[in-house]
Amino acid sequence: MSGTKINPDLQKERNTATFNPDEFTVWWNGGPKKYEQIKALEQNFLNDPELKDDLPISYMSHKEHYEHSVRKAVRIAEKIREIRNNGEDNVETYNALLGGSLGTALLKEGNPMSLHFVMFVPTIMGQGTVDQQVEWLPKAWDCSIIGTYAQTELGHGTFLRGLETRADYDVKTQEFVLNSPTLTSYKWWPGGLGHTANYAVVVAQLYTKGEFRGLAPFIVQVRDEETHMPMPGIDIGEIGSKLSMKSVNQGYLGFKNVRVPLNNMLMKNQQVLPDGTYVPPKTSVLTYGTMMFVRVALIRDAAMALAKASTIACRYSAVRRQSPIDPNEPEPQIMEHTTQQLKVFPIIAKAIVFKANGENIWNMYNNISDEIEKGALERLPEMHALSCCLKAICSSDSAAGIEVCRLSCGGHGFMDCSNFPTLYGMATAVCTYEGENTVMLLQTARYLVKVYGQALQGVKLVPTVAYINDAINNKEFHSFDGSLESIVKAFQFVAANKVRIAYERMEQRRKQGHGPEVSANLCGIELTQAADLHGRAFLASSALFELRNLSSQVSQALGDVLKVVLELYLVDACLNRLGDFLRFINLTDNDVSQLELRLQSCLKRLRPNAVAMVDAFGIHDRILDSALGVFDGNVYEKMFEEAKKSPLNKEPVNQSFHKYLKPFMRANL
Amino acid sequence: MSGTKINPDLQKERNTATFNPDEFTVWWNGGPKKYEQIKALEQNFLNDPELKDDLPISYMSHKEHYEHSVRKAVRIAEKIREIRNNGEDNVETYNALLGGSLGTALLKEGNPMSLHFVMFVPTIMGQGTVDQQVEWLPKAWDCSIIGTYAQTELGHGTFLRGLETRADYDVKTQEFVLNSPTLTSYKWWPGGLGHTANYAVVVAQLYTKGEFRGLAPFIVQVRDEETHMPMPGIDIGEIGSKLSMKSVNQGYLGFKNVRVPLNNMLMKNQQVLPDGTYVPPKTSVLTYGTMMFVRVALIRDAAMALAKASTIACRYSAVRRQSPIDPNEPEPQIMEHTTQQLKVFPIIAKAIVFKANGENIWNMYNNISDEIEKGALERLPEMHALSCCLKAICSSDSAAGIEVCRLSCGGHGFMDCSNFPTLYGMATAVCTYEGENTVMLLQTARYLVKVYGQALQGVKLVPTVAYINDAINNKEFHSFDGSLESIVKAFQFVAANKVRIAYERMEQRRKQGHGPEVSANLCGIELTQAADLHGRAFLASSALFELRNLSSQVSQALGDVLKVVLELYLVDACLNRLGDFLRFINLTDNDVSQLELRLQSCLKRLRPNAVAMVDAFGIHDRILDSALGVFDGNVYEKMFEEAKKSPLNKEPVNQSFHKYLKPFMRANL
Repeated sequence: MSGTKINPDLQKERNTATFNPDEFTVWWNGGPKKYEQIKALEQNFLNDPELKDDLPISYMSHKEHYEHSVRKAVRIAEKIREIRNNGEDNVETYNALLGGSLGTALLKEGNPMSLHFVMFVPTIMGQGTVDQQVEWLPKAWDCSIIGTYAQTELGHGTFLRGLETRADYDVKTQEFVLNSPTLTSYKWWPGGLGHTANYAVVVAQLYTKGEFRGLAPFIVQVRDEETHMPMPGIDIGEIGSKLSMKSVNQGYLGFKNVRVPLNNMLMKNQQVLPDGTYVPPKTSVLTYGTMMFVRVALIRDAAMALAKASTIACRYSAVRRQSPIDPNEPEPQIMEHTTQQLKVFPIIAKAIVFKANGENIWNMYNNISDEIEKGALERLPEMHALSCCLKAICSSDSAAGIEVCRLSCGGHGFMDCSNFPTLYGMATAVCTYEGENTVMLLQTARYLVKVYGQALQGVKLVPTVAYINDAINNKEFHSFDGSLESIVKAFQFVAANKVRIAYERMEQRRKQGHGPEVSANLCGIELTQAADLHGRAFLASSALFELRNLSSQVSQALGDVLKVVLELYLVDACLNRLGDFLRFINLTDNDVSQLELRLQSCLKRLRPNAVAMVDAFGIHDRILDSALGVFDGNVYEKMFEEAKKSPLNKEPVNQSFHKYLKPFMRANL
Repeated sequence: MSGTKINPDLQKERNTATFNPDEFTVWWNGGPKKYEQIKALEQNFLNDPELKDDLPISYMSHKEHYEHSVRKAVRIAEKIREIRNNGEDNVETYNALLGGSLGTALLKEGNPMSLHFVMFVPTIMGQGTVDQQVEWLPKAWDCSIIGTYAQTELGHGTFLRGLETRADYDVKTQEFVLNSPTLTSYKWWPGGLGHTANYAVVVAQLYTKGEFRGLAPFIVQVRDEETHMPMPGIDIGEIGSKLSMKSVNQGYLGFKNVRVPLNNMLMKNQQVLPDGTYVPPKTSVLTYGTMMFVRVALIRDAAMALAKASTIACRYSAVRRQSPIDPNEPEPQIMEHTTQQLKVFPIIAKAIVFKANGENIWNMYNNISDEIEKGALERLPEMHALSCCLKAICSSDSAAGIEVCRLSCGGHGFMDCSNFPTLYGMATAVCTYEGENTVMLLQTARYLVKVYGQALQGVKLVPTVAYINDAINNKEFHSFDGSLESIVKAFQFVAANKVRIAYERMEQRRKQGHGPEVSANLCGIELTQAADLHGRAFLASSALFELRNLSSQVSQALGDVLKVVLELYLVDACLNRLGDFLRFINLTDNDVSQLELRLQSCLKRLRPNAVAMVDAFGIHDRILDSALGVFDGNVYEKMFEEAKKSPLNKEPVNQSFHKYLKPFMRANL
């Protein structure tokens, strides 16, 4: 990367690796063509002097940070406009710049204009009629208006039917009148809504002819195009500072008799006629599609978050020396400590498995979407169930994995310049948005319990839950021989039994006289656990299939390392759910000991290639953005350089000494 | 508290509680006398207008935040000086204001002058001769100098012998010459060192007569008393922004031939004579004492952190309504969801158990300290081992518990005004400082493996590890009947078996030809797990004893609730380590099912008293500092009020619109 001298401990790791990282980098980036595109995009954006920072954002005030972010967001959007005008834009451009790694490298706490591209425009495309698209899309694509998407309210999130914002159709003027009847009905959380956007798609409860019709989306102008002042009846601002996404400018929005023309309701799926007649939507399947798309994308983001965290921790573990193992030897690289390996290496494996799995799910999603387009909805519930639990598992594991990596770096991981605090903040947010994780698991569980009942009646289940048929047919699991196949089979057997328990407890509750919904609530713990195991069993089987497949397509040297990665992932996953395994499968103490020793063996075997493996993620220093994870390993020099950037270090004595400290210290002299 | 109307959902909870929270509050605060002191201190400090803030710190720049913190730190120190001058100060005053809840209410990201009171002054008291105390203490107590404690270096933390800063005695001038020979030898992390303190106790490698003598502490002036400019040869500044402790002003410090007089070495334990003769210390026991003291204090802090987090989550869960359980009913309080109860209620129980345990350990510590003073060192290793693993467990559980509570509040938990981000930042830091958690567990494990070997040879072990004798005598565990006693016994049996495995694997490694240290490293996973189970077994047995004891001393109404708390804690702890239980104890599937149903029963039984229980922690709204956790439950109003404080909301249009957005939006028009 740069011409600086590489830290010798890190160089030694690279010299002794047994495979060539570049081969993996290309796969990780989606093949040679995509990799080239991504590199070109990185080149274009990372080298733009207007997109480089002198002052780290952690030193800015909230207001300075917002202004800095708008400046950069506009610069990014200008460049997107340019790429677009040259006809060179594609879905990767938007993915990389708005949700992806490159985007977070440019604006690490989020982009106040993201929702314009990822929600406002797509919503008009998906829910607007052709006429409405013709009216709004040119302005939106060209950014002569900036929009956002306003759905969640201060008092209402996950449960959409609970939204309170209302739109009453006034047949006399052929307008909708929007109102926020309560404080809890204020829109709350939409990105860019605070001070950036001048338009919003607003989701409201529709009333026509005095009758309630359900939710509908409306395009509402919230600020004047010339002055940016809030429009009449609009109460708007930002919701305040947060754990992360600090520059997303999330806003609140209240309506007081705000009138929008009839044609501002997006009418592709449902219509209001000029006389107030309401024409309901034919199907709600399409919105499932969008939600699934987003969740599948989040699985891929989780892989990238873990790749970043493990890259930082792994390189730092090669450079940092501490605590002698042998008292007669100097302090070793901390990566020599088995406990350190146990923290970092499984995260490397998880990043790779999540990535492979993300590709797998992505392909499934595309196949099923094609089927849906053709009207075949059979696999929709299965795919929905799978995407829900995987979203929950991958987001929570990625947040937890980042923290394990951060803590593995000791005190230095705590510094903003390590980038761990931001990585964690951005990753843990995913546990809540786009479907809160517990709600996601309950959605999956509802499906699992339903198909379990079908399986009991002899129905042959679809592929991702077919293991339930097997478990019903073979109530004991005798085939645990320690092979990776048997670990995957055991995971499925355990998952099937967790589903069985959830099913049986639900039945018991119903026999006690509870309705299905109350029973489901009483069995909430069993249900979420079943969904968790279902997702983990899928990840295990997907890991086995995808990584074996990949191993067979690459050089033997890389393939051998990937086999260790796969084994490490599966053995670690199994030991992390040992209670469930021991409950349903008759493992001996010796079986458990063997698994434990095998975990240690995997760590030992990955050790020589650990640094090369994270190098193989190919993450640019600017994207990694971590003093502890720099490619050249000059960690301490970099930390010192970062410390020097603090505005407090720009002057030898801070004014607070003269103002407060000295008078106090001298008071009694 | 205030005269505002209480949220009716929250009021209903209070009306239907079966016990009086005040009774518990007094116990929680250490009895009537201490409670009164704490309330008086709160009154004095929270009502001081100079200690109230208009602008939340999350909106300030790093520099503004530092200046704000120095202003408040000085005001707090002025008030401490006043209390001291009135002869009214005691250990509680300093605890509350510098480490405790009140201190973090006043300066939530830490106090840049804390280390002066909690490390600089005590080190002079503990390690200075009487003459040195006479020289330095009056100035330090009176704050005419402000000190800090500089030990950790950029490249060296836990392993003290690895420190590189050196102090060479120059017999000609009778001075020590301090130097930082490398970048990694720079002092890094001491609080207040950046721009606040003008003195520091510096730990350095001592050389006299050209010979290495080990570590020694030196008082070094780092800044001029008049001008606050760095002294000659001193390179000083702050280390930069961090995940939390953002106003502690942690600094770096490099030395270039900095000379201090002979008498600036603190010489109570070891001496350098004017001619350079070195007199080594007699014993290193005393420093163990200080470390234990700090770790025991951290256990109590962990209890308080969980009390705060569960108070916020529990009150919010009573106020927030979402997601119908029965589709024909309105959205319920989210506390009705079993999955929500599972998140929040075990944290309430854990807070109480940690608190009770903290008191228990505190008493043990005091008894053992008395014994040590009398020269009886027998119980020192036991107490050291226990304090190490409990520090690790309580700090990691408290950080994890805060995150569970935060996530249980959905998106709103993500906002700074919830106070969760700061609570987490401050709590997770404890996992690393004062002994990194993995290192702590390994210290405990070293002791456990040693006593296991003794027990095998028939030695009767000291009380906290006596369960190892039992397990060696009875290799099978047959007495699991589901009683709380049997859960505790089972925990001990499991812990003993984890210690056995660690011991046996160590033996195997040694038979393979590895030395004891390399064997310990190869068995790092087994060792840390054994230490974890040892600590959890102690917590379980301590919980049983302390809470039963407490239950018997309070009103029946409160006692009944505490019994549920105890049962919830033990059943939850057991299910969280189910893999270990099933491995060593022959529990049937029915036993496990019974434990699961019992967990649900505990949640259900705590439900009516959950809000009263967190009210009983008695945490002042200013100390809780959370819009979601306000005593009156007016959560949404409070959130809106907090949003209005954002400087961005003080003007309708931010300048960035005119500067960046408008030119961009208009470019193509």
